[in-house]
Amino acid sequence: MSSSAVNDDTLFLGIDGGGTKCRSLLVDARGKVMGEGLAGPANPNHGGLNKAIPSITDAAEQALVAAGLSKQDFNRVVVCAALAGVNIPSTYDAMKEWKHPFADWYVTTDLHGACLGAHGGHDGAVIVCGTGSCGFVHVNGKSELIGGHGFHLGDKGSGAWLGLEAVKAVLEAYDGLTPETVLTESLKEVFGISGLEIVERLNKASSSEFARMAPAIFAAADSGDAVAISIVQDGASYIDALARKLLLMNPPRFSMIGGIAAPIKKWLSVEVADQVMPPLEQPELGAIHFAKECYNTKVAEMIA
Amino acid sequence: MSSSAVNDDTLFLGIDGGGTKCRSLLVDARGKVMGEGLAGPANPNHGGLNKAIPSITDAAEQALVAAGLSKQDFNRVVVCAALAGVNIPSTYDAMKEWKHPFADWYVTTDLHGACLGAHGGHDGAVIVCGTGSCGFVHVNGKSELIGGHGFHLGDKGSGAWLGLEAVKAVLEAYDGLTPETVLTESLKEVFGISGLEIVERLNKASSSEFARMAPAIFAAADSGDAVAISIVQDGASYIDALARKLLLMNPPRFSMIGGIAAPIKKWLSVEVADQVMPPLEQPELGAIHFAKECYNTKVAEMIA
Repeated sequence: MSSSAVNDDTLFLGIDGGGTKCRSLLVDARGKVMGEGLAGPANPNHGGLNKAIPSITDAAEQALVAAGLSKQDFNRVVVCAALAGVNIPSTYDAMKEWKHPFADWYVTTDLHGACLGAHGGHDGAVIVCGTGSCGFVHVNGKSELIGGHGFHLGDKGSGAWLGLEAVKAVLEAYDGLTPETVLTESLKEVFGISGLEIVERLNKASSSEFARMAPAIFAAADSGDAVAISIVQDGASYIDALARKLLLMNPPRFSMIGGIAAPIKKWLSVEVADQVMPPLEQPELGAIHFAKECYNTKVAEMIA
Repeated sequence: MSSSAVNDDTLFLGIDGGGTKCRSLLVDARGKVMGEGLAGPANPNHGGLNKAIPSITDAAEQALVAAGLSKQDFNRVVVCAALAGVNIPSTYDAMKEWKHPFADWYVTTDLHGACLGAHGGHDGAVIVCGTGSCGFVHVNGKSELIGGHGFHLGDKGSGAWLGLEAVKAVLEAYDGLTPETVLTESLKEVFGISGLEIVERLNKASSSEFARMAPAIFAAADSGDAVAISIVQDGASYIDALARKLLLMNPPRFSMIGGIAAPIKKWLSVEVADQVMPPLEQPELGAIHFAKECYNTKVAEMIA
């Protein structure tokens, strides 16, 4: 990646936006970190653009202020927002067409940002397994996004999925239809609820609320609870299949990130677990790699 | 059940209210049908009392009008509303405490109404398996409600559950993580969608929308599709366990009602399937049995 086309005054801002928060990082044309920011949810597929855009501009302004600048300088900044939810084509289009206040504006998936970050701007594959789950691989200019269909329809193996399966299992045990499980006690510890209170309290709970159960589910599985083991194994077998599918594209590196990445690793097959490498940089830097590449290409084309 | 305490002028109205509609039936003190009504959703746990109560009064008024009466006669009518959602204690309390315009007002679960109806006002057990799933048994004054925890946390084996599992399976097959399934084609036929459109279209779909897939899932299972068979078997094993649990209380009769009752029967164990008997009356009549029993007891106590 050449920076020859980039004006020395140009600033680059990377944004990593998801369902719970939005982080920003500002660097100068040489890559020196100048400021960062943290704002609210920025998944334009949940809550719409009206919720995502204020988070994005808030996080951007924070990073500028931290660098001794202000939102008056938005027009000096090339921004890439790597966002959850923009794998949905209509959501991507809506974000891309936003009348932004920046020097330039790029949008990509949070997965792409995370993957570029994990591998220092180079090719690789990544599984993000936190509240949700998703796989992404980028090799020789080709990328593929697998899974990431959200809490209701997919995200198997994620914290939210594990929590939801645990709650279902506790209710079936409460009904006397399946064996007892220590997860009943875990649910009481995490949320202070039992029996039909569970339905009342969690009927409309968010994915992040269900994900709060995840540590207790791994603990229950480690203690030998058959129901917890079965849930964790089911989730891990999905993550394992996801990893194998990504590895078919021969990425030079493979990382797992998110809160579930560490505890689920020992439940994966040895062949997959052995290939997991630590992520090198955070997703905001990945978004900056993407912003620089797109912007440099554009400027080079304008000059040519 | 004695009717000696009932004034000849007293009318009884039974209401069967669920997530999509609310049916009413009006009978006189001798049980002669005088009118019926059909109104909107009446599950006070979805949409709240503000949505359920207008449906209930609308259905009640329709039945009175059909009998040549009007809402001026509400104070002659003893009403029992058998409603979805009132298995949640706080929802039951809120409905019970409603400042109703009737001569008397009783509330019970839709399951209890369905069970009383299915067995002509007598003891028995029932599994309702339509958009949702739930079991109920009433024997010697003791009743038990099993399952019915709603689309998000339970309702296994129901139309909505089958539809959701099918959609998840189609998305996993789309990602190349599981074998292909004819359910991909079924989804295209039912909703006209494929690939990532599925996520966009069904991400926030209601339980009744998912339930629209059910006939195609049974057809796919009958045609030998391994994915559909596995989903139907998983759902049927839950319904089977639910039935066995109900039958432990030795109900004199056992019925299955709802749109999934017929197609799932052949997937149940022979021991359970052999005990299924046809329902005798509709749930609104079940609610009327309950209204009469409660009212007669109350009047008899007042006289004594």
